[in-house]
Amino acid sequence: MGNGDYQCPHPVAIPPSKPLSKSLQSSIKETFFPDDPFRQFKNQPLSRKLVLGLQYLIPILEWAPRYTFDFFKSDVIAGITIASLAVPQGISYASLANLPPILGLYSSFVPPLVYAMLGSSRDLAVGTVAVGSLLISSMLVKEVNPHDNPKLYIQLALTATFFAGVFQASLGFLRLGFIVDFLSHSTIVGFMSGAATVVCLQQLKGILGLIHFTHETDLVSVIRSVFSQTHQWRWESGVLGCCFLFYLLLTRYFSKKRPVFFWINAMAPLTSVIFGSILVFLTHAEKHGIQVIGHLKKGLNPLSVSELAFGSPYLSTAIKTGIITGVIGLAEGVAVGRSFAIFKNYHIDGNKEMIAFGMMNIAGSCTSCYLTAGPFSRTAVNFNAGCKTAVSNIVMATAVMITLLFLTPLFYYTPLVVLSSIIIAAMLGLIDYQAAIHLWNIDKFDFTVCMGAYLGVVFGSVEIGLVIAVTLSLLRVLLFVARPRTSVLGNIPKYSMVYRSTDQYPIANNVPGVLILQIDVPVYFANANYLRERISRRIFEEEDRIKSSSEITSLHYVILDLGAVGSIDTSGISMLEEIKRIADRKGLELLLANPRSEVIKKLDKSKFIENIGQERIYLTVREAVAACNFMLHTCKPNPADAGQTIPENNV
Amino acid sequence: MGNGDYQCPHPVAIPPSKPLSKSLQSSIKETFFPDDPFRQFKNQPLSRKLVLGLQYLIPILEWAPRYTFDFFKSDVIAGITIASLAVPQGISYASLANLPPILGLYSSFVPPLVYAMLGSSRDLAVGTVAVGSLLISSMLVKEVNPHDNPKLYIQLALTATFFAGVFQASLGFLRLGFIVDFLSHSTIVGFMSGAATVVCLQQLKGILGLIHFTHETDLVSVIRSVFSQTHQWRWESGVLGCCFLFYLLLTRYFSKKRPVFFWINAMAPLTSVIFGSILVFLTHAEKHGIQVIGHLKKGLNPLSVSELAFGSPYLSTAIKTGIITGVIGLAEGVAVGRSFAIFKNYHIDGNKEMIAFGMMNIAGSCTSCYLTAGPFSRTAVNFNAGCKTAVSNIVMATAVMITLLFLTPLFYYTPLVVLSSIIIAAMLGLIDYQAAIHLWNIDKFDFTVCMGAYLGVVFGSVEIGLVIAVTLSLLRVLLFVARPRTSVLGNIPKYSMVYRSTDQYPIANNVPGVLILQIDVPVYFANANYLRERISRRIFEEEDRIKSSSEITSLHYVILDLGAVGSIDTSGISMLEEIKRIADRKGLELLLANPRSEVIKKLDKSKFIENIGQERIYLTVREAVAACNFMLHTCKPNPADAGQTIPENNV
Repeated sequence: MGNGDYQCPHPVAIPPSKPLSKSLQSSIKETFFPDDPFRQFKNQPLSRKLVLGLQYLIPILEWAPRYTFDFFKSDVIAGITIASLAVPQGISYASLANLPPILGLYSSFVPPLVYAMLGSSRDLAVGTVAVGSLLISSMLVKEVNPHDNPKLYIQLALTATFFAGVFQASLGFLRLGFIVDFLSHSTIVGFMSGAATVVCLQQLKGILGLIHFTHETDLVSVIRSVFSQTHQWRWESGVLGCCFLFYLLLTRYFSKKRPVFFWINAMAPLTSVIFGSILVFLTHAEKHGIQVIGHLKKGLNPLSVSELAFGSPYLSTAIKTGIITGVIGLAEGVAVGRSFAIFKNYHIDGNKEMIAFGMMNIAGSCTSCYLTAGPFSRTAVNFNAGCKTAVSNIVMATAVMITLLFLTPLFYYTPLVVLSSIIIAAMLGLIDYQAAIHLWNIDKFDFTVCMGAYLGVVFGSVEIGLVIAVTLSLLRVLLFVARPRTSVLGNIPKYSMVYRSTDQYPIANNVPGVLILQIDVPVYFANANYLRERISRRIFEEEDRIKSSSEITSLHYVILDLGAVGSIDTSGISMLEEIKRIADRKGLELLLANPRSEVIKKLDKSKFIENIGQERIYLTVREAVAACNFMLHTCKPNPADAGQTIPENNV
Repeated sequence: MGNGDYQCPHPVAIPPSKPLSKSLQSSIKETFFPDDPFRQFKNQPLSRKLVLGLQYLIPILEWAPRYTFDFFKSDVIAGITIASLAVPQGISYASLANLPPILGLYSSFVPPLVYAMLGSSRDLAVGTVAVGSLLISSMLVKEVNPHDNPKLYIQLALTATFFAGVFQASLGFLRLGFIVDFLSHSTIVGFMSGAATVVCLQQLKGILGLIHFTHETDLVSVIRSVFSQTHQWRWESGVLGCCFLFYLLLTRYFSKKRPVFFWINAMAPLTSVIFGSILVFLTHAEKHGIQVIGHLKKGLNPLSVSELAFGSPYLSTAIKTGIITGVIGLAEGVAVGRSFAIFKNYHIDGNKEMIAFGMMNIAGSCTSCYLTAGPFSRTAVNFNAGCKTAVSNIVMATAVMITLLFLTPLFYYTPLVVLSSIIIAAMLGLIDYQAAIHLWNIDKFDFTVCMGAYLGVVFGSVEIGLVIAVTLSLLRVLLFVARPRTSVLGNIPKYSMVYRSTDQYPIANNVPGVLILQIDVPVYFANANYLRERISRRIFEEEDRIKSSSEITSLHYVILDLGAVGSIDTSGISMLEEIKRIADRKGLELLLANPRSEVIKKLDKSKFIENIGQERIYLTVREAVAACNFMLHTCKPNPADAGQTIPENNV
């Protein structure tokens, strides 16, 4: 390294400080409106703005004018296909939520209509979800027994649905959709698999034809409950259940092998119900231990505004249930919608989706529907059936309406065991062990979060699993911020301008007499102490290393590469001041490289730049090293005195 | 930009993946042992290891052999000085905690001895703290009335102290000291100022000579309580209080002007007590509405192990109080110790300090002492008096012992109003409005946190203020991680190798046909969705800009600079995969620059590198841009085919 090439360093820009109102405005915009939804309103006449505004709020206004007959044909086919799934699933999931089966059908009528108008996904099929149903039941059963007090239980379920809707819609209106982001993918994988396991376990009641069953959902309680009443098991029920389960799994296997046969899988639940009902009707098996659905009321959804129990002593339970189920519903629904949108190359607005989900649950809670969201299975069928727009939801709703008006008596003989088989078949698809293996391979911590959620749900309860997973996820973020890496940088040979971590690039060489450290997180109160410890230890270790080796040049300079420090707070600035003092005491000089605008602004305001000297701040690590080398080889002059220009290196 | 200079890019190293046990071990070491405490044990014989181990656990063994007579002289002077402060402060703070005054004296005897053996600070003066005393009283009074049931109240206070000690010591043993780091500097400023304000308000009782007083601590309750009993105000008490307060503030003013007179300030509380007691003794003012301390028991600390109320129904309150006061005590004590250590250029081990604090509180709780920590005022006096080692604490303890054995009767006539004045004078120094102004100037969010804590404490309660401040601080960290910046980079003219944010360096030029984006935080589930939105919007905006401007080259390449991305999780990888898909659909090519070792390892494992192509990952932004330019000007060949070497640029 020659010492004659010292070059005038490029100045590090200190952006002018903006007035408070302006910087506040821009940070609010970045935080709440990352997608800049008002972009299209710019420079438009008022009437056009009104139309655009209405279209923004009610997406159907935007795409309906472009709707064609070809689209309609596809949507009718898809709509009928998902209706054939919606009817048996609706009945099954309602019983999972300890609600009357008819509520499951009601819930597939009004909410899809609302969603079709407000939703921005073209593929999402709306309906009740297994995990949400389980959550409602497991949270409400603690307060009210659905068998002793069915009316109050239904009221609470509807009230919870109402609050879920209010919560979802307000998240959307307040543009707080990012709260849902804190449920990470690994949390959802673990949680959903756990919930699916629990739901399957609950079906042992139906499969074995048991009358009494535990209200707990954890593995231990369920197994104990099942094996404590072996004398109550009904073999007729068990055999029937296993047959249908086999049939359902077989059709799924086939449709996976040959995607064109997807409709075999899609129709399998309905054919199971029809076949099971005919079987019972012919053999009168309902008199031989096979439980059936029984009488279902004819007619459309009755209004249920008066059922919302705002004055109930259990209101707080209803609110809590609403919020938790609302968040889970959103997380699943938005994720499902987003995946299919990416597949088909269109965009989904998360906040709009939340408003749509919220509105459909509010409307639902007033018309005898309980919690609805966007179940993965139904949406996948919708997609495979070739749906084009949300009209497929309208078609499904119409089909369910016809069922409600005319066909409910046909379900009298439907055996419960068939419904259990349908639920188990759907749930087994949700236990995503492949995703868990993928997590294990890539990121052990994500795997831990996933297993924490899974085991929490299976051995504790749904809420325990959720709390474990969210806590672990947050802890991870906090731990990452609290325990950042500091790496020693070295010069990559033959690339004199490039300095990289010596851990990652073992060929990178130390610069004699200079220690280059890189901090790679925002410097905050949470990590300021740790960074101080870590940096002083790095300096200490470097001095040790030089002493024990036979290097001639002792340590003279410490360069902090702040290029990866996106932000700093007052604790972080104090930390830098302490590092400066530590360096001063050791007779070392501290230089900074590449501070970012946020950081340099604050360093300037806090007079740290005055303290360290403007001439000790460099645009690049390379310039800082050049300055150090120049000073080292010319008896340490003030680096500000030096002055030449960097030779050009045209690329 | 010539297109002939295309150079062979330097390969980006993918570090070999370590076995799980090894990477786990190294990350545990980085997380819990950043200071590498076992370094000194390496390569030592067993006997030496034993000695070092003992010295590590009991620091006095380390420095005692080097203790000199000169040190001793300094320590004796400092010790006597802080004892003169400790006696009146001990009595005052005990009454603030609603405990008998004698407990305040006991607490200045045993804990300092324990700390002198275990602590690593040379300046910290141990004793009771105002905020801790207030916290104990405000939390315990909710459960037990100290006037109706004084015995139970004392038991609970001792039990809380015991748990505070256990909690502090376990934090230290488990090396979880970083939990304290989550109380940011701004939180502590706001919280301490708020607590000091509340403590001052409580002294209105003593100053005005009131008998009845509210148990609430908030401003509104206190003002209402004071003004609802104006007829009870005692002017004698008020006048005396104001005089002493004036005297105390005057001495502080003088000692601040002339630091050599610090001892005037240090001795002021003792002289106030002596003068006040003599005044009362001579005028028999205790019969005219001036309340006095009265009888104090002679003798050393009685054992109180049997008083620890582990079986009490209020145990959970005691544990909660212990944990909260323990954390607050630690936060203040460690911060105080650390500041003076930096001043005197020695090192404090946070985890060791925690063990020392914990042990002294456990020992204290067994010997009739309540919560002790390292009060700032007393430590500053100790420092100013020229203390050299923790022996000054031993001297102070001895002086307090003599007081306990022989001098307690002298305090019979000490008027309570003098104690109130002493507390107010001490507390006014803690209201750090200058720090708040500093926070406002540098970081508005830190200021908000600070004011949140202050207003929460003053208008709510001590706990509410703490919860507000910690929540705000955590929210800030989470918000920062959830809403990162993405900046567009441009080439700085004349520095062809340097690419910087165009926001910070407006002179930086866009590279035609290439969009360079920098992500500056770890990519996590919490920000993956946001980053996807933001990056796709950036691409969209760039396309818009090119369309509306008259640039010839349309957008062809997107370079993501990952140099500041310290880590990534599976959600982050999915985000990159989606960005890749978005880019593919738009016919853009995605290139990555400078991925760090953590990131590239995971990208490799998840096959993302295969997906994007190893040849699209570059060591620097500059190389990526060079590749883009080469491809742009030679009809887009595969960048991997090109091959030349970069000309050297020796520095």
